[in-house]
Amino acid sequence: MKIYEFEGFPNPTRIRIALAEKGLTEQVEFVSVNVPEGEHQSEAFRAKNPSAAVPVLELEDGTCISECTAITEYLDHLDGSPALTGQTAKDRAVIHMMQRRAESGLLDAVATYFHHATPGLGKEIEGYQCAEWGEHQKETALKGMRYLDNILAEKLYLAGDEFSIADITAFAGLAFAGFANIDVPEDCANLQAWHARVAARPSIAA
Amino acid sequence: MKIYEFEGFPNPTRIRIALAEKGLTEQVEFVSVNVPEGEHQSEAFRAKNPSAAVPVLELEDGTCISECTAITEYLDHLDGSPALTGQTAKDRAVIHMMQRRAESGLLDAVATYFHHATPGLGKEIEGYQCAEWGEHQKETALKGMRYLDNILAEKLYLAGDEFSIADITAFAGLAFAGFANIDVPEDCANLQAWHARVAARPSIAA
Repeated sequence: MKIYEFEGFPNPTRIRIALAEKGLTEQVEFVSVNVPEGEHQSEAFRAKNPSAAVPVLELEDGTCISECTAITEYLDHLDGSPALTGQTAKDRAVIHMMQRRAESGLLDAVATYFHHATPGLGKEIEGYQCAEWGEHQKETALKGMRYLDNILAEKLYLAGDEFSIADITAFAGLAFAGFANIDVPEDCANLQAWHARVAARPSIAA
Repeated sequence: MKIYEFEGFPNPTRIRIALAEKGLTEQVEFVSVNVPEGEHQSEAFRAKNPSAAVPVLELEDGTCISECTAITEYLDHLDGSPALTGQTAKDRAVIHMMQRRAESGLLDAVATYFHHATPGLGKEIEGYQCAEWGEHQKETALKGMRYLDNILAEKLYLAGDEFSIADITAFAGLAFAGFANIDVPEDCANLQAWHARVAARPSIAA
């Protein structure tokens, strides 16, 4: 299988971590798409992902999968033993809920701030920008950090005792926030301790 | 199990359809939350869902699950035989991808238009509104409809031959679009035929 990506960017990072957690990194051919130069907006790439975003997983039969949650579902179910998305109905529910909250409340909010309220990747690539909405999403991201901090007062990981896709999404969200100069509030000690715990995992630290 | 909802609203409709598809409707106690009066923003309800949105699934042990995708994961895995979210790795990937595209490209876009570029549920409940962003999301929704129409040129349902959670999300998106006076473009014949096909399912027509 191939992964089209731009290494170091937040969404590709989510899939790099999922691959490492599942021990699948060596089975993937990584293909670099030059996002800073706008290659993801080319007609050739839009044929793989009409949303013009990395990463994209291309299977041997040519099927292209975009959206990090969908790619992670694929990787996590390849061995019939999902470890990142839960096994029981209840585990799956809690993990998917927390993943979505980390996504809409942090990662996507930071992305919208970056692409709309800052120069982002430059005028030519960004196209339409709505600065007011971007600034509002910065506030959403800060609220999201406080919400996650609160969850982590009682849990080791966002969905409970086990690391999951929810943690991957939030970790990418904090990385993007750092890049976009949105600081984690100093009183979010639980979130900061969780961040150190996740950063030390072999899938990330190695 | 209990479902907190407001009947007829788009997101509760997604769960009503999932329940009917799984034959679980009779096992649920529905609790009405008066969203037009702002009851979803009360402290009591925020304890169940800090995002202040319906629906919420409350399990017997008190665990509260929000986000329609997470609730559907739960319902779909209760019998160990997921029918709405896919069984194989590839089916799960395609379904989750299409679900997310129907969500971000249609349902959420229509919701943002409604809550930001129209009076929505009224000034007191809406709070902050960004009309410019709302209008932009109307364009996103229309593009989303054309994208789904294109997909349906070659497929019976959004993820292939089988009805899935992706169809539920898109169906709720079109219902919300109708409510918000965003018309499906007349040349989207595939989307309109699909809509009739889905509306005729016993889970919806009955």
